Amino acid sequence: MDASALVDATLEGDRLALARILTAVENRTPVAEAALRRLYPLAGKAHLVGITGPPGSGKSTLVSALIGAARTAGRAVAVVAVDPSSPITGGALLGDRVRMQSYATDRDVFIRSMASRGHAGGLASTSTAAAAVLDAAGFDLILIETVGTGQSEVEVAAAADTTVVLEAPEMGDEVQAIKAGLLEVADIVVVNKGDRPGAQRTASQLRAMLVAVGRAGVRQTGHPRATASAAELAAAERPRPKEPEVLVTTATTGDGIPELLATLDRHRARGRAAGGTPARLARAEAQVWAILADRLRADLRAPSYRAATDALLGRVASHEVDPFSAADALLAGLRPEKSP
Amino acid sequence: MDASALVDATLEGDRLALARILTAVENRTPVAEAALRRLYPLAGKAHLVGITGPPGSGKSTLVSALIGAARTAGRAVAVVAVDPSSPITGGALLGDRVRMQSYATDRDVFIRSMASRGHAGGLASTSTAAAAVLDAAGFDLILIETVGTGQSEVEVAAAADTTVVLEAPEMGDEVQAIKAGLLEVADIVVVNKGDRPGAQRTASQLRAMLVAVGRAGVRQTGHPRATASAAELAAAERPRPKEPEVLVTTATTGDGIPELLATLDRHRARGRAAGGTPARLARAEAQVWAILADRLRADLRAPSYRAATDALLGRVASHEVDPFSAADALLAGLRPEKSP
Repeated sequence: MDASALVDATLEGDRLALARILTAVENRTPVAEAALRRLYPLAGKAHLVGITGPPGSGKSTLVSALIGAARTAGRAVAVVAVDPSSPITGGALLGDRVRMQSYATDRDVFIRSMASRGHAGGLASTSTAAAAVLDAAGFDLILIETVGTGQSEVEVAAAADTTVVLEAPEMGDEVQAIKAGLLEVADIVVVNKGDRPGAQRTASQLRAMLVAVGRAGVRQTGHPRATASAAELAAAERPRPKEPEVLVTTATTGDGIPELLATLDRHRARGRAAGGTPARLARAEAQVWAILADRLRADLRAPSYRAATDALLGRVASHEVDPFSAADALLAGLRPEKSP
Repeated sequence: MDASALVDATLEGDRLALARILTAVENRTPVAEAALRRLYPLAGKAHLVGITGPPGSGKSTLVSALIGAARTAGRAVAVVAVDPSSPITGGALLGDRVRMQSYATDRDVFIRSMASRGHAGGLASTSTAAAAVLDAAGFDLILIETVGTGQSEVEVAAAADTTVVLEAPEMGDEVQAIKAGLLEVADIVVVNKGDRPGAQRTASQLRAMLVAVGRAGVRQTGHPRATASAAELAAAERPRPKEPEVLVTTATTGDGIPELLATLDRHRARGRAAGGTPARLARAEAQVWAILADRLRADLRAPSYRAATDALLGRVASHEVDPFSAADALLAGLRPEKSP
């Protein structure tokens, strides 16, 4: 099936066609571009929710519980599980195959893991493109699940309309330190495993920390760079958000899950009332940016440039040429009218 | 001081000037470019060692122990600690200020944390540029320390000449899963906290796992993309490396540290004998790529384009324009001779 037929089938509810488009998106094939050109204008209706947190905070269980709650409310739910376990093979950390079995007969649940194929920015742009496909395919709620321990993964989650950061009660010192970074991107903080001792205390500590840090002050350090992105500038200029709400859930029993769903809805409504979220601009920019980078990379790898590009990179590797001079030379080749 | 004066002072051993250049590199200021244009051709002599592993594996202690062993051997050592704790503020996770105090009187030890300033690929290119500056400044051994839980961080460590992956004995299930991804980039695997029960058993299990997986087979899944980078192609074409050595250390007591240093030296010697490492080509490409992306971004943010760029991104955010059409329009503006 070509891209056009896959898109038609996807819009008619064919889940296999949808899966094939997502595979194309993951592998950045020409089918992905053709499909996205048609599907993207149909997207923009779904609520994109990023869910991140350190290993052991119970993300997978929480996502399963959220799926259940959203289905009870009659919504179609898709999950994009961004899998950082393997930069090379993209092995499945998050066990989505297992999870998917619980919803095997429910066609309004779609779970998909996306491995990143290892070039910078790929993780965010791939998951954003996948979310756009799922959005166009009619899913109302799209959960983007990442392990919140690396910068890329945090960026992926933070590119959603609403970002949920999970914590487990009383985690170790080093994880606490990572937490500080995660909290900065949180719209909603969830202390999961609420049945463990210390859960309420952890929630209280987090609330106190969020108020103390002022959070607004944390958001902006240093000056915007000359090349600051539109999203960065929008973020710098927008009114300071209030501190994120801190909820306690026990995903294994479902305690607190309806409240979490309601809080997600409220956050979305506030974002819409404020005229859309800066996250949407950030996503748009990240997507366009990734495409531009792909185009540039393809130009430099085109038959007419490839040998020159490789020779130049080899001279940079041996420190004969500095990387700035190499970049200038490559750009001059691509844009002859601007060469000196 | 301008870039030229800072470079002169750095080459004369002025550590304050060196620190200022590194700050410029971190903030991507024009001083960084000017300094790197001069320093880069002087670099290429140091051994770059990436050290990564999950939280709790004792990276900081191991790095301190390695510094001690390298100093005993008369080498000048620099540490670039890539700090993923905060995508926004770049808070110091790794406590380098504390560690630095132990070496405050030793001018042949230099420890620096680098926060990533949040755009894709920034982490790798910033730490690579910092390593080049330290290399040119005369440091023999440069340790690039990251928390190996996110893809970006793994990529940073894997861009070194030699990549060391730490494990602690008997870690939890989810961490085990992450480990599989980390192992793929390892040249040397270190089971630290060797005084804990199970350390030798963990090492045996890892050796068995590395042999069983074949590792060579793991390295290559799928076909190189049409736009595969020179480094990717080099990696695909080079002879399969043998399985990484697995060592046991107890960084707190120094047990196994001299053996680790010797193993690092052997790995480097092998890499040189083989005519340089693919890592050097990967680093060169990543640097040039980051610079090209910065140049392109700056072009799109130049006064003559900025308003058009922002308007177009806004239309992508509202789903009026798909991101491919937007990218094409932006490129057409930048490269008028190629527009249709």
